[in-house]
Amino acid sequence: MMPLDFRSVPDFGLAWLDASGPDCDIALSTRVRIARNLQGYPFSVRAKPADREAILSTVQDVLDRTPPVANGIFVNIDRLDSRGRLLLLERHLVSRELVGQDGSEAPSSSALVASSDQPVGLMINEEDHLRLQSLTSGFSPRQTWGLVDSLDEELGSQLPYAFHHEFGHLTSCPTNCGTGLRASVLIHLPGLVLTKEINKVLQGISQVGLTFRGLYGEGSEVVGNLFQISNQTTLGKSEEDLIDHLQKIVGQVVEYERQARAVLVRDATNVIEDKVWRAFGLLRHARSLGFDELMNLLSGVRLGLSLKLIAGPRVYVLNRIMIFAQNAHLEEAGGAGTLSGPELDIQRAIYVRSALAEAEPSPGS
Amino acid sequence: MMPLDFRSVPDFGLAWLDASGPDCDIALSTRVRIARNLQGYPFSVRAKPADREAILSTVQDVLDRTPPVANGIFVNIDRLDSRGRLLLLERHLVSRELVGQDGSEAPSSSALVASSDQPVGLMINEEDHLRLQSLTSGFSPRQTWGLVDSLDEELGSQLPYAFHHEFGHLTSCPTNCGTGLRASVLIHLPGLVLTKEINKVLQGISQVGLTFRGLYGEGSEVVGNLFQISNQTTLGKSEEDLIDHLQKIVGQVVEYERQARAVLVRDATNVIEDKVWRAFGLLRHARSLGFDELMNLLSGVRLGLSLKLIAGPRVYVLNRIMIFAQNAHLEEAGGAGTLSGPELDIQRAIYVRSALAEAEPSPGS
Repeated sequence: MMPLDFRSVPDFGLAWLDASGPDCDIALSTRVRIARNLQGYPFSVRAKPADREAILSTVQDVLDRTPPVANGIFVNIDRLDSRGRLLLLERHLVSRELVGQDGSEAPSSSALVASSDQPVGLMINEEDHLRLQSLTSGFSPRQTWGLVDSLDEELGSQLPYAFHHEFGHLTSCPTNCGTGLRASVLIHLPGLVLTKEINKVLQGISQVGLTFRGLYGEGSEVVGNLFQISNQTTLGKSEEDLIDHLQKIVGQVVEYERQARAVLVRDATNVIEDKVWRAFGLLRHARSLGFDELMNLLSGVRLGLSLKLIAGPRVYVLNRIMIFAQNAHLEEAGGAGTLSGPELDIQRAIYVRSALAEAEPSPGS
Repeated sequence: MMPLDFRSVPDFGLAWLDASGPDCDIALSTRVRIARNLQGYPFSVRAKPADREAILSTVQDVLDRTPPVANGIFVNIDRLDSRGRLLLLERHLVSRELVGQDGSEAPSSSALVASSDQPVGLMINEEDHLRLQSLTSGFSPRQTWGLVDSLDEELGSQLPYAFHHEFGHLTSCPTNCGTGLRASVLIHLPGLVLTKEINKVLQGISQVGLTFRGLYGEGSEVVGNLFQISNQTTLGKSEEDLIDHLQKIVGQVVEYERQARAVLVRDATNVIEDKVWRAFGLLRHARSLGFDELMNLLSGVRLGLSLKLIAGPRVYVLNRIMIFAQNAHLEEAGGAGTLSGPELDIQRAIYVRSALAEAEPSPGS
C-alpha cells in the first residue's frame, strides 16, 4: 500500500452525501468507530516517536492482506500540510486529535486508511493506536457496524490487540474501554426544536444511556438543528446490544421528529413555508454568510424539502454545501492562501449561491 | 363634469411612480397642497350638511371652466364604499380626514377632483373647503408648486376665497393660515441612517423651519428610511419664499445623502452589498410579509439600485410595490372580502414575488 494524495480522490469520504440511506430526510449519516490498541506498546499519550513508528509499520505490514482496505487509500497525516489535515477533519474522516489542535501540527507517524470501494477505514496513532471507522448515509447503525466489525475481524486476526478477559478491549481513555465502540447518528431535528419538544427528548435519551453533541463532536455547539446522538458507555454490554439499543432509541427519536413535523404542517404551514423560503432566499442571494448562519438556513431548506414545501434543491446539494462551505474547503477551492474571517464569509456566500443556482427550486405542492 | 368610478382609471394618481423626476434615486415624490375656503360658509368643522352641499355645488359649477381640471376625474368620496376610499388614501390622493377614520365613514358632500392630463387636482369639503394639490415624481418643489398655483389662479378668479388682508388665506386650523401651503418631499435616506448622521440632519432642518413625518403624514412612524420633509409654518412668508426655502434645504439633504452613500460604498461595500441582496432575497422568496418589513426591505433594494450593487428591478417596480402592496390594494386585487392580518401578509408576499419575478436582476457592477 502506497501513500496517496487524497486530494486526487475527488469523492474521498463523501459517499454519505448522496442521501441514499434509510430515513435520510431526518438522519444525515451514521458513524461507528471502535478503539483498538496493540499489545506491547505504550498507549498514544505515552508512546515515544519510535513506538509510534513501530505501531504504524506493524499495521502497514498487514493492510495489504486486509480486505476491504487492501488496495485502498493511505494518507500520512503528519506529512500533509495544515490545510490538508483540516480538509480531512472537515470531511469527518479524522478526529481533531489526529490533526492536532487547529491543524497546526500533527502527531508523528499518524495515518488514515480508507477502503476504495466501501465507506470503512481506520486511523493509526490517534488517541488509540487504531480507530476503525465507518460513515454511511442515513440512519443505519447495524449496516455501519457490520462494516467496522468485518474490518475488525480481519485486522484482529493478524494483529495482537490489547485485550483483558474482564475489561475487554483496553483503551487510552477508560471511557472507551470494553467494546471501544462509539456509534452515532447525525440527525436533523427542526420539528422537535420548533415545537419545543427537543429538551424532553434529549432528557429522555440521556436517561437510557445515550448522549448528544453538536456537529463537530465532543464540546461542539448544536447548530442548524443538527444533533449527533451516540452511546454514552462502551462497557458492560456487547457491541450488538449497544448497536441495537441505539437503533431502537434513535428510531424513536426519528418517529418523534416525524410527528413534530406533521404537527407543524397541520398547525403552522404558512409560518413554516415562510421560514423555509426566507432561508432559501437568503442562501440564494446573501453576499456574506457565517458558517453557523449557513447551517441554520440549510436547516430551514432541508425541513422544507422534507415537508414538500419547496421542490429542490436535492438533499445531496444541501449535504455537499455542509462540507464544501467549510473554511478549509473554501480556501482549498480558492487556491489562494489563508482567508480572513470576512473573506471566508464572502467566499462561502459565493459558493452557496453557485451550488444553489444549479438547482433552482420551484414552489412545492 | 360627471361622477366617475376612479377604479376604471388604472393609472389614477400613479404618474409619480415612473421615477422620471429630478434626483429620483433619492427623492420619491414632491407634494404641494394649499388650503382654501369660500367666503360666506362656516369652516368644515362647523358646516352643516346643507352648507357642505352648497359648497360642493358652488365649486362644481366652475370646474368645467377651470383648466386643467375641466374634463377631469370627479369622485364623490361619500358615495364610495369603504375600500374605495382607502384605495384613494393609499394612493395619497386624499387625506385621512376626507375618508373618515379607518375609511368606515366619509364626510357628506366630499369629493376629489383630478386633471386627466396633469398631476394636479383638489379635494372638496375636507378639513378646509378646498385643498388644491399636486403630486409629482422626484424632487421638484418649484414645478409642483407651479401646477397648484395655476389651478389656484383659475379657481380664485371664479370663487370668492376667504381672505384677510393681514392674515392672508383663512383656514380651518390656524397652523395653515396665511399661504395655506404645505410642500413636502418624500425622501429616502438610508445612507444617513446607516452612517448615523440622520439625527443631526433632522435637527438641522427643524432649526430652519422644516419638519419631517413618516410615509403617512402627521403622526405616522418612519418606515423604510422614508421621510416626508415639509415646511413647518405657512404664515409670514410668500409661497415662493416657502418653496424656495424647501428647494434649498432639501437640496442640501439630498447632497448629504449622496455623500453618506459614497462613504458607505467606500468603507463598507461588502456589508452594504450583502444587506441589499439579502433584502432582495427575502422579497423574492418570503411567503408572508408585513408592510413595515416590506418597506424596510424595499429600502435595501432601492439603495442597492442607486449604488449599482444590483441591476434591476427598476425604481418604477419598487414604487409600484409601495402602492399596490398596501392593504386595500391587496384586497381590491384579490376581489374577495376583507382579509385578516395574516392573510394580508401572505397576499402581500405573493404580490411582491410576482412583481419582482417580472424584473429578475443580475449582479451589479
